[in-house]
Amino acid sequence: MRTIDWVDDAIELVDQTKLPDELVTLRITDVDTLIGAIGRLAVRGAPALGVAGAFGVVLARGDAAQIARLRAARPTAVNLAWAVDQVSALPPEQALEAALRIRDDDIAACVAMGERGAALLEGERVRVMTVCNTGGLACVERGTALGVIQTLHERGRLDEVLALETRPLLQGARLTTWELARMGAPHRLIVDSAGPYLLGRGGIDAVLIGADRIAANGDVANKIGSYALALGAERAGVPFIVVAPESTIDESTPNGDKITIEDRDPSEVTRVRGVRLAPKGTQALNPAFDVTPHDLITAIVTEKRVIKP
Amino acid sequence: MRTIDWVDDAIELVDQTKLPDELVTLRITDVDTLIGAIGRLAVRGAPALGVAGAFGVVLARGDAAQIARLRAARPTAVNLAWAVDQVSALPPEQALEAALRIRDDDIAACVAMGERGAALLEGERVRVMTVCNTGGLACVERGTALGVIQTLHERGRLDEVLALETRPLLQGARLTTWELARMGAPHRLIVDSAGPYLLGRGGIDAVLIGADRIAANGDVANKIGSYALALGAERAGVPFIVVAPESTIDESTPNGDKITIEDRDPSEVTRVRGVRLAPKGTQALNPAFDVTPHDLITAIVTEKRVIKP
Repeated sequence: MRTIDWVDDAIELVDQTKLPDELVTLRITDVDTLIGAIGRLAVRGAPALGVAGAFGVVLARGDAAQIARLRAARPTAVNLAWAVDQVSALPPEQALEAALRIRDDDIAACVAMGERGAALLEGERVRVMTVCNTGGLACVERGTALGVIQTLHERGRLDEVLALETRPLLQGARLTTWELARMGAPHRLIVDSAGPYLLGRGGIDAVLIGADRIAANGDVANKIGSYALALGAERAGVPFIVVAPESTIDESTPNGDKITIEDRDPSEVTRVRGVRLAPKGTQALNPAFDVTPHDLITAIVTEKRVIKP
Repeated sequence: MRTIDWVDDAIELVDQTKLPDELVTLRITDVDTLIGAIGRLAVRGAPALGVAGAFGVVLARGDAAQIARLRAARPTAVNLAWAVDQVSALPPEQALEAALRIRDDDIAACVAMGERGAALLEGERVRVMTVCNTGGLACVERGTALGVIQTLHERGRLDEVLALETRPLLQGARLTTWELARMGAPHRLIVDSAGPYLLGRGGIDAVLIGADRIAANGDVANKIGSYALALGAERAGVPFIVVAPESTIDESTPNGDKITIEDRDPSEVTRVRGVRLAPKGTQALNPAFDVTPHDLITAIVTEKRVIKP
């Protein structure tokens, strides 16, 4: 299954807001619909957003205003802007070929990251912890951090995954569990705040996360909750490993302080799947990402190398 | 308003599972109904559980089996066992007087903790962060950590409270926001994993939390998520202050490793207020509390003293 692809002159993508209840594929033929899908997280995950951006430029047919709006649809994920820039720098007639290459590169990169990440982990069998969704649903076919987990599972080396639910939008509870169940990989769901505590309690061999943007100094922007896990991993002496394609590395951003963190709609905090959690009128603050300083990161695994910040 | 009281030969308590939608008072005349109310968190918060235990012994009328079951209804909160022991050590005809004294002592202790905690915080006006619910709803009239916040607010010293929603049962989103709104105190709700990150981002003057049990060495068991906040506070250099009555200190427990952590029903993780979050059949792990080591704690404020572990 591909999360996003180019089929008969249109983008086809899995609507991730419908999972795990329904597997619905959207067919998108114009840039505004794509921007809407990005905004409501129907398509999400930094690598998948890169591929969406690449195909979106094809849909834009050289319209600079559309391309500019598409490029800014998710500020934290660098892959979106990166792919839009790559494809829009070419003449429109070469755009599709370039976009398909970005798709194929993602597929190959995830295979390579899976191999490299699995090789990095010591021990015959491992128990790992992860946050958000970094699986095939965040990429095209296989995932980044969850791609490493998939490779471990395929090689009989995976004891268990502890998956953080990932409030507010529950990508861990909805998407990561769904992917792990499809792979047949043993897993249990935990609330986000249990992650640091369970690292301290012992028995976890590594934390594996993805990245939305990696600054030149190795600071990593990723889903809110990553930083708390990094603090817990450091205190517990557990390796904290970031798995992301080279396109996530943003050499033009010197450090994490310079990364724009998207504050999303407060109603994502006060409601869950349509159910109100807090008294009417409750205000909320909703930083969707955080920045983990490089000193808390054991290794960054890309399709080409292992970086030790 | 009192969260729990003795009225016409029965316990009357606010059913906290119904908040913030409805303010419902339960009238309880037998121990088994009380144990059920404790189990489903209709009454919760270590000090309120102490008062519930004290009144429960009155309802037990000397029945040792009922008293033993009541004592074990929530293993992590020491106040419950402490109050049950206090009252059941007396002849049944003295039980009610002793229980009423525990109630009155709680009311006075919360006033004293509010004063002492507010005096400890430097700065004309402060912005604080808190987890779970430690307000009047966790005690009898005023709260522990939220009692300090109430005192700050009454003195015009409170800029804002950032309240963690406190998954899985959302005591922060449902109860703390409800109490803060009733006091007219400015506040915003955040997801739990945003707490450590926002501490690092700056502008927070203190973290204030309650406690379910404090070991002899100063390690503190409290709602899951407290430990992650403590790690975030340490890294950010923000004071991390525990506010709890003396009855929470358990000298018979040498350190946090010896504290029993209650693993609650996995369905609390996979569902929120009746709505399923994860694919059917998803397994979950649900540690309801965590232990913060004493080296991460700036101060413990009780009704009698300030302890610096």
